[in-house]
Amino acid sequence: MSRQSNRTTDNKKMSSELFTLTYGALVTQLCKDYENDEEVNKQLDKMGYNIGVRLIEDFLARSTIGRCQDFRETADIIAKVAFKMYLGITPSVTNWSPAGDEFSLILENNPLADFVELPDNHNTLIYSNLLSGVLRGALEMVQMAVDVKFVQDTLRGDNVTEIRMKFIKRIEENLPAGEE
Amino acid sequence: MSRQSNRTTDNKKMSSELFTLTYGALVTQLCKDYENDEEVNKQLDKMGYNIGVRLIEDFLARSTIGRCQDFRETADIIAKVAFKMYLGITPSVTNWSPAGDEFSLILENNPLADFVELPDNHNTLIYSNLLSGVLRGALEMVQMAVDVKFVQDTLRGDNVTEIRMKFIKRIEENLPAGEE
Repeated sequence: MSRQSNRTTDNKKMSSELFTLTYGALVTQLCKDYENDEEVNKQLDKMGYNIGVRLIEDFLARSTIGRCQDFRETADIIAKVAFKMYLGITPSVTNWSPAGDEFSLILENNPLADFVELPDNHNTLIYSNLLSGVLRGALEMVQMAVDVKFVQDTLRGDNVTEIRMKFIKRIEENLPAGEE
Repeated sequence: MSRQSNRTTDNKKMSSELFTLTYGALVTQLCKDYENDEEVNKQLDKMGYNIGVRLIEDFLARSTIGRCQDFRETADIIAKVAFKMYLGITPSVTNWSPAGDEFSLILENNPLADFVELPDNHNTLIYSNLLSGVLRGALEMVQMAVDVKFVQDTLRGDNVTEIRMKFIKRIEENLPAGEE
């Protein structure tokens, strides 16, 4: 028996197509389970949140990135390091609010939505909403409460996919429960 | 507004962790929906089949591989090209049957199962069974009927994960329906 050694667990790079189609199977299953786009959107966000709170550990370990100085740095790290690492794309960071507490990630192509067409009866489905949850969950684990939502989506005929992120507050550590 | 151009859709390489966790969410959802491991295994296989019949097109387009001469060549292409492309790993091909119609793919690490521990009440769950379906579906589209099953699984305490593939028959093209 001959075996190839394959111990580089940290460098498994894969093409996105199997992921894309598997994600499609997940959304399809949820559409069967819930029959209501709004509920499916919520479930995707919730699943994404649970993924984000786990993924952040892997991210911090592999990127060796420390605490961000401000929300602008956070935005850059998300776009250039995190999206690149886990989805193989680099969205642009744009549309900053004057106060610097809101920005948009523009995805010119969205790997989750490759090959996808929304059926007419799902026109309120936020197909890639898992990503909102992932971002929210991951940032919460580094003490940032953020609001994340899709405001444009190529699946609904927009030219690009736009994820809007709004900083809400820094979550204080070590506060006794209920004191916040 | 500044945008980065990102048109290299053919070269999106991603790390497997987000896929791994998303796959976990899918299996968890199916376990909620069906409550019975055997039914979950079937659903995973069925979903995988539907993925495989679509993935093969992408695979043929990107790998520029022609028709395999025999089952040994098929085995090598699956292990060295397809697994490498879509999961970032290269299983070894081994345990050939004397007739050359059966072999095993040995996965020393399985990206789908990273971070996973099966709960005690799911000891008949074939966690990665989506892959069986993907292989079956993809090969059917190139006129090969194969039987695919997991015979070892690190999630159940085995040292490696082993997928057994058995050639059943070449599917004839252009036969009138019912004539087979």
